[in-house]
Amino acid sequence: MTEQRQDSHRRPTISDVAARAGVSKGAVSRTFNGGKGISPGTMARIRAAAAELSWTPSTAARAVRGGPAHAVGVVLRRPTELLELDPFFAAFLAGVESALTPVGYAAVLRFVADSHTERECYEQLAGERRVDGFLLTDLRHRDPRFEWLSRLGARVVVAGSPARTCPFPWVSTGSANLVRELTRHLIAQGHHTIAHVAGTPSLRHARRRRQLWEDTLVEAGLEPGPVVTGDFTTDGGARATRELLALDRASRPTAIFYANDLMAIAGLSVLAEYGVKVPDEMAVAGFDDISLASYVTPALTTVRCDYRRMGQIAAHTLLAQLRNEEVAPQLTIGGELRLRRSTGA
Amino acid sequence: MTEQRQDSHRRPTISDVAARAGVSKGAVSRTFNGGKGISPGTMARIRAAAAELSWTPSTAARAVRGGPAHAVGVVLRRPTELLELDPFFAAFLAGVESALTPVGYAAVLRFVADSHTERECYEQLAGERRVDGFLLTDLRHRDPRFEWLSRLGARVVVAGSPARTCPFPWVSTGSANLVRELTRHLIAQGHHTIAHVAGTPSLRHARRRRQLWEDTLVEAGLEPGPVVTGDFTTDGGARATRELLALDRASRPTAIFYANDLMAIAGLSVLAEYGVKVPDEMAVAGFDDISLASYVTPALTTVRCDYRRMGQIAAHTLLAQLRNEEVAPQLTIGGELRLRRSTGA
Repeated sequence: MTEQRQDSHRRPTISDVAARAGVSKGAVSRTFNGGKGISPGTMARIRAAAAELSWTPSTAARAVRGGPAHAVGVVLRRPTELLELDPFFAAFLAGVESALTPVGYAAVLRFVADSHTERECYEQLAGERRVDGFLLTDLRHRDPRFEWLSRLGARVVVAGSPARTCPFPWVSTGSANLVRELTRHLIAQGHHTIAHVAGTPSLRHARRRRQLWEDTLVEAGLEPGPVVTGDFTTDGGARATRELLALDRASRPTAIFYANDLMAIAGLSVLAEYGVKVPDEMAVAGFDDISLASYVTPALTTVRCDYRRMGQIAAHTLLAQLRNEEVAPQLTIGGELRLRRSTGA
Repeated sequence: MTEQRQDSHRRPTISDVAARAGVSKGAVSRTFNGGKGISPGTMARIRAAAAELSWTPSTAARAVRGGPAHAVGVVLRRPTELLELDPFFAAFLAGVESALTPVGYAAVLRFVADSHTERECYEQLAGERRVDGFLLTDLRHRDPRFEWLSRLGARVVVAGSPARTCPFPWVSTGSANLVRELTRHLIAQGHHTIAHVAGTPSLRHARRRRQLWEDTLVEAGLEPGPVVTGDFTTDGGARATRELLALDRASRPTAIFYANDLMAIAGLSVLAEYGVKVPDEMAVAGFDDISLASYVTPALTTVRCDYRRMGQIAAHTLLAQLRNEEVAPQLTIGGELRLRRSTGA
């Protein structure tokens, strides 16, 4: 990147920016260092003055002095296919950005293929001070990242519901009650054999949805129906549905709860192909409430989670941590059950 | 971010890494500076040695010396809703990452809400040397970014097909022929009134799809059918479909080409609601080939573009530019027409 040429003979300084915006140098500095105690209006004025003078705080110089990198790391280890139509990823990132942008922070994004590269990536981002902290998503069963990042002394906020001990603050969707409510809704519709098409078992949220479905059935005195693993993809959902339809009459379910909408919508297509009427012969429910869920026929009953808000709150919590403020160890977003035609609602 | 503690008494140096990997210091340096002339195997060995010794090149120090930031900027200005189920964004990013990761580059991602913030964002990322170059997506009609980035002297690669003069190398999907082919397929099926549900008009690819559809009809001696703008969202696609169904018999189409699959799938749902049989009473085609396109009923005819490959090639081209290598001014990815039941194929 070549440097921008200055029209004036000397480079603008922080004092020039302060003078132009009619504020103190401290206010300029705080605006570009997290924005604590500066009103949005004043920040906008200071940023405008800085832009007019082509003044930028030197991140590089700050990093060498040990100052903040003004960036937050998000390292994703998941197959591309799961990104392509994923309702979580983009909404979450957009929420993260909505918190970072006003204070001039960037998201540094890395995709990694395996555990080795993943660990290396965290060490590199932290070691080279490219980021000030991390947001963790896609929690795994016995997640090794908790230990790696604790060792690195990194500031971290977790998006998801960790199993037991989590050394970092975490933001959960609070969807546990909604999965229970959805399962109870299926029971109330008169279903006795309710199957589950599970997500990737190594992912914490996949295990959790399965467990909540199972617990609710057991609590209602019902035997949990068959479980097929569908890995969260459309192809996986279609395959799982075929497996369920191949079961003999006795064990064949009358309702299926899919761990996400993509699998449920693929399932609807397989059921149509086999001439199984939804919801009369088979009730179908998903999870996520992707925008297509209300545009398939019949419209899909599902659980709505506000992933954008989750990203926003996770990023705000991380920024507060970086300013050394006290943060709540756990926050819950909340969601909604969306009852539609696919379960006879 | 606190520093990682070293178990040994002195910090490891580049010489230690070179000795451990059995290579020259120059090879270590090149591995962490773009990887030119180093085989993937050797790079892997060097990275492993560096990881074992907890050695990282200091990006911060490099940036102050004027060295590369080892990062590529992607600035997106689009509503969150268009990210949530977008087949382009995540696949493209995953492709970008697949090119950046092996050479230790990160993607720095920013979302911006308006043109002012957008420009500021490019200036900040370039001015603070947080990135070495940019990838541009979502090309607009008369895109102002060409001028901004030329002025900044930035290294840029464009993903998309610019209208006329583009000062940067660009990677296109080469889907122009496929839109023509798709339109000709509809004509060959005997349709005379073929409607178009267009995407956001300010976006270059939306205008282009509409133009190609129109040109192909005119070339075949047909009057272009009605056009309704649907803004690329499911809600927009549903609304546009209702508008088309409200037309009087004479101007009502027998086929609809939607500018993306999301709108086409929402359209299928509206057609089902109105009792219009697809493909017998209305043929429907989309664009993107999202994973759900083959899992709706009837399966959706569409155009497949390999956005992952597009991201990979765009990033490779940018990296080559950063190494001051000659790059082709224009590259084409290629795609495929996917004929399915929704057009009677």
